Amino acid sequence: LTDIKIVILAGGQGTRFWPISRGRFPKQFLSISSGEESLIQATVSRVRPLADEQDILVTTNAQHVSIIKEHLPLVEVISEPVGRNTAPAVGLAALHVVRANPDAVMILLPADHIVSKEQDFLDTLNRAAQLAGELDVLVTVGLKPLSPHTGFGYIQRGDQVGDCSYRVSRFSEKPDLERARKYLESGDYYWNSGMFIWKAKVLLQAIEKHMPALYEGLMRIDSAIGTDTEASVVQNVFDSLESVSIDYGVMEHAENCAVVIAGDIGWSDVGSWDAWSDHCVKDQQGNAVLGDVLALESRNCVVNSREKLTALIGLEDVVIIDSRDALLVCKRDRVQDVKEIVAELKQQGREDLL
Amino acid sequence: LTDIKIVILAGGQGTRFWPISRGRFPKQFLSISSGEESLIQATVSRVRPLADEQDILVTTNAQHVSIIKEHLPLVEVISEPVGRNTAPAVGLAALHVVRANPDAVMILLPADHIVSKEQDFLDTLNRAAQLAGELDVLVTVGLKPLSPHTGFGYIQRGDQVGDCSYRVSRFSEKPDLERARKYLESGDYYWNSGMFIWKAKVLLQAIEKHMPALYEGLMRIDSAIGTDTEASVVQNVFDSLESVSIDYGVMEHAENCAVVIAGDIGWSDVGSWDAWSDHCVKDQQGNAVLGDVLALESRNCVVNSREKLTALIGLEDVVIIDSRDALLVCKRDRVQDVKEIVAELKQQGREDLL
Repeated sequence: LTDIKIVILAGGQGTRFWPISRGRFPKQFLSISSGEESLIQATVSRVRPLADEQDILVTTNAQHVSIIKEHLPLVEVISEPVGRNTAPAVGLAALHVVRANPDAVMILLPADHIVSKEQDFLDTLNRAAQLAGELDVLVTVGLKPLSPHTGFGYIQRGDQVGDCSYRVSRFSEKPDLERARKYLESGDYYWNSGMFIWKAKVLLQAIEKHMPALYEGLMRIDSAIGTDTEASVVQNVFDSLESVSIDYGVMEHAENCAVVIAGDIGWSDVGSWDAWSDHCVKDQQGNAVLGDVLALESRNCVVNSREKLTALIGLEDVVIIDSRDALLVCKRDRVQDVKEIVAELKQQGREDLL
Repeated sequence: LTDIKIVILAGGQGTRFWPISRGRFPKQFLSISSGEESLIQATVSRVRPLADEQDILVTTNAQHVSIIKEHLPLVEVISEPVGRNTAPAVGLAALHVVRANPDAVMILLPADHIVSKEQDFLDTLNRAAQLAGELDVLVTVGLKPLSPHTGFGYIQRGDQVGDCSYRVSRFSEKPDLERARKYLESGDYYWNSGMFIWKAKVLLQAIEKHMPALYEGLMRIDSAIGTDTEASVVQNVFDSLESVSIDYGVMEHAENCAVVIAGDIGWSDVGSWDAWSDHCVKDQQGNAVLGDVLALESRNCVVNSREKLTALIGLEDVVIIDSRDALLVCKRDRVQDVKEIVAELKQQGREDLL
C-alpha cells in the first residue's frame, strides 16, 4: 500500500463571503449550518478513511495558525510567514512530506470546498494515488464541467492512461465565456478542481526544473529544519519569493508528465453566497435561512443572520448577511460584486471591517 | 387676541415603523435625520409662534411620560393611565384648558406629523382659532386630497363660511378605493388631518351631548383635580371608559356645528417607511439613507441603519431598517405589511421585540 500524506491548503481569504468571513476568519472556518463542522473540519473528516490525523498537514498563514488548531487540534500545521500564493506553500509542505517518507504520495486539497459524493471522492483519490505512485506523474482531479463557468481553470485531456485517466494535453487559465462554451461543447475539457496528487519528491523535482528560485529557497529551509534558525530562514525565504500559484508555476510547464483523472464527486468550491445556499436546507418558498428569521411572502432568498431577529417582506432573490459590525443586502445575481464592497472598504482604510 | 392653548396628542404606538419604533419608543420620538429634532419636538417648535411653552399640553400614555419630559422639558404633560383612543384623552385635556381659561381656544395636533409649509400652517391655525372663537364651532383642518388614499378619513364640505372655510356636510370614515376615487374627482372632499380647533368649553358641551358617559367621567375627574385622590379617580374613570376616537365619538355626530378650513400646508402623516423617505435627503440614485451605508448600483432604496456598516448591491425599491435587536428588509411597496410582522411577533409572545 502506498504511504499517503494529505496536505490541506488553508491560506484563503474568502472575501466573497464578507461580511461573515473576514481576514481573520476566512471561509474555511465557516459552517454551512448551525452546529455543523466547519468546511475545513469537514475536509479532514472526509479524508480520514485515507489517512490518520498524524498524516494530515495543514498549511496556513501565520495569523490563522491558532484558529486552525482550535478547529483541528490533532493535525500538524505548517505556518507560512507571509502569503505567497500556493507554490511556496505547496513546496514547503512537500519538503516536510519527503523528510518523513521519501516515497510518500501527497494529496493536496483545498480547505474550503464541498464534496457530496464522498465514496466516489475517496475512490478517485485512491486511483490517483496509485497512478502517482506507479508512474511518477503529477495527477490532477478534473471535474466534468456543468456550465461554461469562467471562474475556473480548464484542463484538456489527451491520450487515455487508464480508467477515467488521461495524459494532460493542456492547462488553460480561466477562459472568457466564448472559449468556456467551446470547452464545454468539445467534451474533452475538465474543470481544474485544485486537487493534486503526486509523490512529494516528484513535485520537488518539477519545482527544481520550473521554479529554480523556489527550489533553492526550499533547500535552504531544508538545511535549517530542526535548528534554531528554522523560523528565521523560512521567514527570509518567503520574504524573497514571488507570489505564484502551483498551477501557473509548475503544472502549466509540466504538461508532459501530468495526468488528469476524471472525478464525479459532487464537488463545489462554494464560491459565493449564492453557491453556499445550494448546500442549505430550504423552506417551502425556496429560502435558505440561518438564524431567527420571519419571511413574509418572500422567495428564493438567502439569509444568514444570527445576531438578531430578521424580518423579510415581499422579497425575491435577495441575499441578506448580517454580522456583528456589518450588514450586506444584495441581489442574488450580484453576489460576485461583494468583492467590490471589500475593495472599497480597503480603499477607505476601514481595516476593522475586512 | 384669542387665548390659545395647544394640545398635542402623543399616544400613538407607531407599529408601522417597527423595528425602530417600539411600544416604548413610538414614532413621535424618531427624527427624520440624524441630529435633528424628533417629530414631537418639531411639532412643538412649529407652533411656538402661536403659544408659549407653558400654553402647550401634551397628552400621552403613562409609560411615555418620562421620555416626553426628556424631549420637551418645559411643556405640561397629561398622563393617560390606560390608552382609550383619542376621545377620553382630548376630553381630559379640554378639562385642563377650561380650568386655566374658560374661554380659551384649544388647538389639537397629532405629535407625529410633518408640515413643510410652516407659515401657511400658522395662518390656517390662526384663522381657524378666530372662527372657533367667534362662532363657537368645532373647526377641523381639511387637506386637499392628492390621491385616492384609503388610509384617511374624508370630510365633505357644505356651505361656505369664510375664506377657505365651509360648514361640514359629512364626515366619512376611511373609504374603499372606489369611493376614494369619487371623493377625489368630486372636488368637495378633504382629507381629515386630525387637527382640530375649538373652544375647550364648546368641545366639552359636544362631549356632554354625544358621549355622556365620558362627560360624566370627566366631571368626576374635575372634582378631584388638585386633591389627593386625583390620580386614582383618573385611573378609575379611564378604566371604565370605552376606546373611542374623537372623530367617531364627537365629530361625526356634530356635523351641524362643524366647520372645515382648507389648508395647503405641506402636510404628511408619515404613515410608513415609504412616506418617511419622502422627507429625507436622497443621493443621486434616489436612495434615502441614514447611517454608514455603501450603496453599489442600488436605486430608490430606504436605509435606516445606525448600528453598523450596511452594504447594498444591485437593489431597487428595497427598505432596510436595522435596529439593535431586529432587522427589517422589505420591498418598498409592501411597507404597510410591517404590521403583519408585528402581529406575528405579538402572537409568538415576543414582547421584547415589540
